Amino acid sequence: MAEINDDNKALIRFLNNLMPLSDEIIELAIQQTFNINVRKNSIITCPKEQTDDCLFLILKGIIRGFIIDEGKDITAWIVAENTLFGNIRNPGVLKPTYNEQYQALEDTDLIVLPYSFIDKLYDFFPETNILARKLLAINYHISQERSILSRIPSAESRYKQFQEGHPSIKFRVPLKYLASYLGMRVETLSRLRKKAKDDKN
Amino acid sequence: MAEINDDNKALIRFLNNLMPLSDEIIELAIQQTFNINVRKNSIITCPKEQTDDCLFLILKGIIRGFIIDEGKDITAWIVAENTLFGNIRNPGVLKPTYNEQYQALEDTDLIVLPYSFIDKLYDFFPETNILARKLLAINYHISQERSILSRIPSAESRYKQFQEGHPSIKFRVPLKYLASYLGMRVETLSRLRKKAKDDKN
Repeated sequence: MAEINDDNKALIRFLNNLMPLSDEIIELAIQQTFNINVRKNSIITCPKEQTDDCLFLILKGIIRGFIIDEGKDITAWIVAENTLFGNIRNPGVLKPTYNEQYQALEDTDLIVLPYSFIDKLYDFFPETNILARKLLAINYHISQERSILSRIPSAESRYKQFQEGHPSIKFRVPLKYLASYLGMRVETLSRLRKKAKDDKN
Repeated sequence: MAEINDDNKALIRFLNNLMPLSDEIIELAIQQTFNINVRKNSIITCPKEQTDDCLFLILKGIIRGFIIDEGKDITAWIVAENTLFGNIRNPGVLKPTYNEQYQALEDTDLIVLPYSFIDKLYDFFPETNILARKLLAINYHISQERSILSRIPSAESRYKQFQEGHPSIKFRVPLKYLASYLGMRVETLSRLRKKAKDDKN
């Protein structure tokens, strides 16, 4: 069996939580996934030498997903350790309107899961469709929460909601990205932060 | 084999588009799914006599998903014919913050898919996990689009985007729900609608 290191362990643990993995699946995961480190502020893409299309698991760091609409940079999501992100393939007929990009907001360690590996899982271990179904259901719910958050009419309530849901990352994200994610101006977010701090004292 | 009527056909066609269904699966679907009609403005729940938990396919009509946050009614999504909606089960540890409800915005015909039927599919026809994986990926992408839409800074751009994506339903939704979905006040939406009409003339 291939050698298990700490990074492999993190991936196995992440997947195992959703469905117990067989030794064969673990072996394939160790062989076909690999690590990359990206510097703060870099745009993240699948490493071209190894794979055209992939997902990423965050071992350490923080990532934002963003799109450009009419020249405006809009932060669509912000995720941290132990989250899977990347290009989730769309079997639907309606293609996404936007081209989503990913940016590291800290020096970040990632595990790369090439789609060639994921497709091998589906082909040789059909039970991994259950795993994928569960992962997608979780991601669907997280996406719905993001979608609801931005529709809360009061900026203060949106900020409060975010704070409660993400206590550990709220100070790791530059104001301009957090303001965009929360659908408010930077000045509004600064004011709300100051108010929250004053209320605490 | 059980009798196929037009409503069954719509369900089979919907699922078949994602994955060719075996005769056994079609037979089970015909036996275990059923129709309901709901009146305009009704809140939609799974029919208690038959099932505690279910999904719905819209045959005719239009539905909004909404949540109540601090006493405020927020429209999270609006869907029409040939869409599946309902309580997508969440295998994640983070439970949703909100209790989503569904309301018919027109007299609506639905097919009910009880979770007892869906679980039977997973148990007896494990290949239906592929179907579910694809459906969830599609729904994930739709949810992400909703999430991005509401973060577009300009109200006019949000309205334009919605118009382009949903040309057929924009006049079927009461202003107050559409305004909430688009994250703007009713007055703003009225003004944008009037402007769009004037620009056309």
